[in-house]
Amino acid sequence: MKKGRFITIEGGEGAGKTTLIEELARLLIEQGYRVLTTREPGGIPIAEQIRSVILDKLNTKMDARTEALLYAAARRQHLIEKVIPALDEGMFVICDRFVDSSLAYQGYARELGIEAVRSINDFAIDGRMPELTLWLDISPEAGLARIQEAAGREINRLDLEGLSFHRLVRDGYIELMKRDPDRIIRIDAENEPNVVLNEAISIINERFRGLYASDVKMI
Amino acid sequence: MKKGRFITIEGGEGAGKTTLIEELARLLIEQGYRVLTTREPGGIPIAEQIRSVILDKLNTKMDARTEALLYAAARRQHLIEKVIPALDEGMFVICDRFVDSSLAYQGYARELGIEAVRSINDFAIDGRMPELTLWLDISPEAGLARIQEAAGREINRLDLEGLSFHRLVRDGYIELMKRDPDRIIRIDAENEPNVVLNEAISIINERFRGLYASDVKMI
Repeated sequence: MKKGRFITIEGGEGAGKTTLIEELARLLIEQGYRVLTTREPGGIPIAEQIRSVILDKLNTKMDARTEALLYAAARRQHLIEKVIPALDEGMFVICDRFVDSSLAYQGYARELGIEAVRSINDFAIDGRMPELTLWLDISPEAGLARIQEAAGREINRLDLEGLSFHRLVRDGYIELMKRDPDRIIRIDAENEPNVVLNEAISIINERFRGLYASDVKMI
Repeated sequence: MKKGRFITIEGGEGAGKTTLIEELARLLIEQGYRVLTTREPGGIPIAEQIRSVILDKLNTKMDARTEALLYAAARRQHLIEKVIPALDEGMFVICDRFVDSSLAYQGYARELGIEAVRSINDFAIDGRMPELTLWLDISPEAGLARIQEAAGREINRLDLEGLSFHRLVRDGYIELMKRDPDRIIRIDAENEPNVVLNEAISIINERFRGLYASDVKMI
């Protein structure tokens, strides 16, 4: 049985994850690969129900640890019902955010501790870590500017307050990359989208060389 | 500030947990103690929502690890919103089932592993373990007979199949007691309810001697 490939894409708001994933999938499919792109909860009913509890605006009393456990539970169910079956069929699975988001946001920026949040995620994924994680790194200021340009509005006070949190998240990703330099590869996401895409393809080719009939061609 | 006391009651079906908790609370209140009896999800809206996801009959695809994470999430929220505030007010909190149920049922009997399930519960409770756990031990056969007597029906095939699972759960509690003999105290729950109650009071008095003005009186 052909072995699937599990790649995750990480990064803050405005880093261009969605664009990269769409372009990467398009290229891979054109070149004959079978590809699943997904993100939690990904239409899996149990994971969607769990996400609804997290996002319910009435749940203002939700504790940060409760929330982290719920993210891990939704992650488990999405992994079991969607990611693992695709990997078992030999597909290329590209997941928008995974464990590292919980570690950077809840573990580091929300100060629950990277190792504490990792322990519940280790339980959730039971050994199914991605082989490769591309971290789209953009400064929080540049990410915010992109989002606002897209939304056609000015920067306001709340946006600026959010910046200090997103700086913490970025520090979290830097810390994760230090701890796991073989798996997590940084891409400078302030470059143009096609530069980011070609760098991603180059990293994927280098990582999986020999596993496919030929390298994925660049655009 | 007066320090609260956190006691949990564990045991299989038909062991008499509910009766013991009611009688224990009645006695303690009569003797002037402030008591909270509770069980998860305990009317806490977020914990109730999580429990609904677990119990939804349509969720037949729920993975055992997803379920264990959801139990841990509901536990966290119930602990934060109900148990800890009562302990902070100096109350005697008696909780019907807690971490040990997850360890015995999911960890041991469902074979997820006691240490794996403990890791996510350690995250959930963040150091708030009960000081004392009373394990009401009854043979699965005797527990089943009690439940059936109460329901006024005969033992059927499904009941008998359930027995082997409840034997595993009991083995799980025995294993937990071996690992944590200071905290988990076994009570022979095949005795009459007032014998069980007096033994429970005697254990509580011994454990908390000197912490209260006088011992809790036996009936």
